[in-house]
Amino acid sequence: MKLTLGQISDQFDLPLYGDASIEVSGIASLQDARSDQLTFLFSSGYRKYLPTTRAACVVLAEADRPACSSACLVAESPRLAWARIATVFDDTPKPNGKHHPSAIVDPAARIGAGVTIGANVVIEAGVKIGDGSAIGAGVFVGEGTVTGNDVRLFANVSVYHGVRLGNRVTVHSGAVLGADGFGFEFDASDGTFVKIPQTAGLVIGDDVEIGAGTTIDRGALNDTQIGDGVKIDNQVQIGHNTRVGHHTVISGCTAIAGSTTIGSYCLIGGGVGIVDNIMIADQVEITAMSLVSQSITKGGRYSSGTGLMPGADWKRNIVVFKQLSGLLRRVRRLETGSRE
Amino acid sequence: MKLTLGQISDQFDLPLYGDASIEVSGIASLQDARSDQLTFLFSSGYRKYLPTTRAACVVLAEADRPACSSACLVAESPRLAWARIATVFDDTPKPNGKHHPSAIVDPAARIGAGVTIGANVVIEAGVKIGDGSAIGAGVFVGEGTVTGNDVRLFANVSVYHGVRLGNRVTVHSGAVLGADGFGFEFDASDGTFVKIPQTAGLVIGDDVEIGAGTTIDRGALNDTQIGDGVKIDNQVQIGHNTRVGHHTVISGCTAIAGSTTIGSYCLIGGGVGIVDNIMIADQVEITAMSLVSQSITKGGRYSSGTGLMPGADWKRNIVVFKQLSGLLRRVRRLETGSRE
Amino acid sequence: MKLTLGQISDQFDLPLYGDASIEVSGIASLQDARSDQLTFLFSSGYRKYLPTTRAACVVLAEADRPACSSACLVAESPRLAWARIATVFDDTPKPNGKHHPSAIVDPAARIGAGVTIGANVVIEAGVKIGDGSAIGAGVFVGEGTVTGNDVRLFANVSVYHGVRLGNRVTVHSGAVLGADGFGFEFDASDGTFVKIPQTAGLVIGDDVEIGAGTTIDRGALNDTQIGDGVKIDNQVQIGHNTRVGHHTVISGCTAIAGSTTIGSYCLIGGGVGIVDNIMIADQVEITAMSLVSQSITKGGRYSSGTGLMPGADWKRNIVVFKQLSGLLRRVRRLETGSRE
Repeated sequence: MKLTLGQISDQFDLPLYGDASIEVSGIASLQDARSDQLTFLFSSGYRKYLPTTRAACVVLAEADRPACSSACLVAESPRLAWARIATVFDDTPKPNGKHHPSAIVDPAARIGAGVTIGANVVIEAGVKIGDGSAIGAGVFVGEGTVTGNDVRLFANVSVYHGVRLGNRVTVHSGAVLGADGFGFEFDASDGTFVKIPQTAGLVIGDDVEIGAGTTIDRGALNDTQIGDGVKIDNQVQIGHNTRVGHHTVISGCTAIAGSTTIGSYCLIGGGVGIVDNIMIADQVEITAMSLVSQSITKGGRYSSGTGLMPGADWKRNIVVFKQLSGLLRRVRRLETGSRE
Repeated sequence: MKLTLGQISDQFDLPLYGDASIEVSGIASLQDARSDQLTFLFSSGYRKYLPTTRAACVVLAEADRPACSSACLVAESPRLAWARIATVFDDTPKPNGKHHPSAIVDPAARIGAGVTIGANVVIEAGVKIGDGSAIGAGVFVGEGTVTGNDVRLFANVSVYHGVRLGNRVTVHSGAVLGADGFGFEFDASDGTFVKIPQTAGLVIGDDVEIGAGTTIDRGALNDTQIGDGVKIDNQVQIGHNTRVGHHTVISGCTAIAGSTTIGSYCLIGGGVGIVDNIMIADQVEITAMSLVSQSITKGGRYSSGTGLMPGADWKRNIVVFKQLSGLLRRVRRLETGSRE
Repeated sequence: MKLTLGQISDQFDLPLYGDASIEVSGIASLQDARSDQLTFLFSSGYRKYLPTTRAACVVLAEADRPACSSACLVAESPRLAWARIATVFDDTPKPNGKHHPSAIVDPAARIGAGVTIGANVVIEAGVKIGDGSAIGAGVFVGEGTVTGNDVRLFANVSVYHGVRLGNRVTVHSGAVLGADGFGFEFDASDGTFVKIPQTAGLVIGDDVEIGAGTTIDRGALNDTQIGDGVKIDNQVQIGHNTRVGHHTVISGCTAIAGSTTIGSYCLIGGGVGIVDNIMIADQVEITAMSLVSQSITKGGRYSSGTGLMPGADWKRNIVVFKQLSGLLRRVRRLETGSRE
């Protein structure tokens, strides 16, 4: 794929400063770009790399243009411009619209127009796959699951029975959708835990992306619900009955327990833990590896943890941490004494 | 599936207050139940939803009966009643007892009576699958692995060679059983890490449930052992040689390092970390995202972490945390001074 | 597999004290070894098990020899000796060099000499598999991916398009290599997140081991890079553009965000979180479940967290933690007062 700077300027409506006939064949970072590649300047912190970049052209904000001696394309948001221009140079294999002969598709499944079905796919009875979708090699889709249009499931995804996915949902390899929620009840009569069948479902909205190895459980009595536009990174765990509001972003390795409700436009993670049966308001930001153990009723940024220390310092401080309530008492005694 | 309240009352031995001929066709939560559904009241905190529920009937404790105006079924433990009644309305596809023609089963494997083998299953030589078990689509079972009866492996589970599973073990999609433990030894002569072959096995007891994406490693010199009745949630990691006592419950995303011994009837997680080579007593409860770095010799509840704070408060406090040992010294100096 | 102690002594160049004709048929721990097994004493802490071990022979350090009454083999490093001797008794199934007829290999893929291809493997066009490699059942290898020689992918691994693996790379079941990095840019014009296509690759060096369920993303603009000799445990997540230096060891459930650079010979984890866009020096050790939120410029050991406490103590201390900055002010006031 080769494009001239003029073509890129036209297609993405970005003013060009430089020779419109220059051809580029790919994109790369400021430091790594070759002379036939396009690059991007996202923040003034990286402006120091401008003088030495070999890139044919830099996409940048108007404010950074004076510092650029090569050709440049000016964008209001260079990162949004990146997101759009990168689609041209993306070599992720395009679905070919074919059904691989090794795929095992139940005759009672309904497969939409233009659907691609990869090798060794298993699609059970009652499944409906929306138009234009692509089901990767080795994917399993359980009985009665329904997807919208233009869904993409990458290789080796597992979808249990009765899951509903919206339009333009992307699911990466190894993700598991609709497995049983974790529900057991202790039976004191024999000292065992009795499984609670997870009879509700999992409903995923439109334009959701789900990362590799992520697991989202089906509900126990209520459906688990993922709102429109939610973006979920790799190895995230979402428990049964939980609801995630639209356009919330969840970074890698975050664990959300069951029956929790999360608002819209939240930024969560990575490595965050959120306990069960709480509510989190809209536009809440949780910093990495925080534990949320109570409801959050107001938007804003929240954190927990101690910050990192050299091991010896950490040990010294941690000893005092374990006697903090005693230390407070001692300060109170001193305060009372000094007032006497 | 439709049942009358009378049938449910009889089958589960729950006194009915209301019209025995009313039919229900499913279960749902108090808030979401339709008029042809059964619902449950688990705790007095939810009693506020009783007046507005549309459910045909509520399963509840005797103490909550006066507050209920609809039909009700009285249970000593409404949650245990739920666990049992839900089995009737569970639409998880039932194994059909057939071997899918696409399955690749080594002639030297022994497959029990009434076993279901799904599409694209791979079963290697020397495997024994117990009677009544169900092996989901795309599952891999390595050489010499042996399962008890009524085991269920959902789609795309991977079981390495020589793993032993008890009776009635359920394993959810994406789980990996018996992969190599993480063992390397530094060789100073060339500055590399030498792999330690993991020659021991993995033994899983009866009535164990293992969640989606969970990984349990085989042992290095001792078998990794999971006791009877253990329940393990999604994305849990259990290292080599570790032993988990019977009826212990491990919530999602908990990581247990190698050669650690965990007692019986513990409640762990989620997101908990447990280091290697320690022992945890019976009936220990570890709250979410705690790190256990030393042995625990007595039952009870244990925690670590700082609790969540608004970001600005957290930053202010964390600065002081990093000088805690200095603060203690200053308080000591004040105390000594005030005594002079 | 049976070997005499004399054969083991010769093969691994370890002085034998005892009867060279004794045969052993396996290895086990000091406590569990049977009388036909070999065992190992790694540290003086386990010397107490020497008198009661039933093992035929103990591999130990010279300093522990006097305490041993059975036959023994003396090693400078008993753990290195273990790593080497264990290869003899390892019953991990050996690749058979065959292509299973159910495998779906694109005619435009190049498969090296002596490669084993398991049942239901899918290998796409443009793939190159190096000599002597073994591809497990159900593995997916995407377009244009290239592996070195003697690579082993266990069952149900997923490798996306265009990934490059070095020689002697081992990848355990359920791992996902080269899925999209997590990149979205907010578009204020319509309140949605726009996907940033992840157009760079993933490059893995020689002698790397990757654990079960681990996910390593492809790059956005730069390749994600894993250095030679890196050992990665189960359920680790490594984000896009991140670089891990050679011979670094990463324990289970560690999450490393994007665009971070990690040095060589680091020891990380498990359960560690490392934020995006930072640098970590060589020979840094991060203890379990620490959060690294800033660059680390010097080698050494680093920690975060509070340590574990009984729940009641923890609650008392955590209350004070949340007022730490106030406590510091009070101590300052006392100090000023006492100086007056």
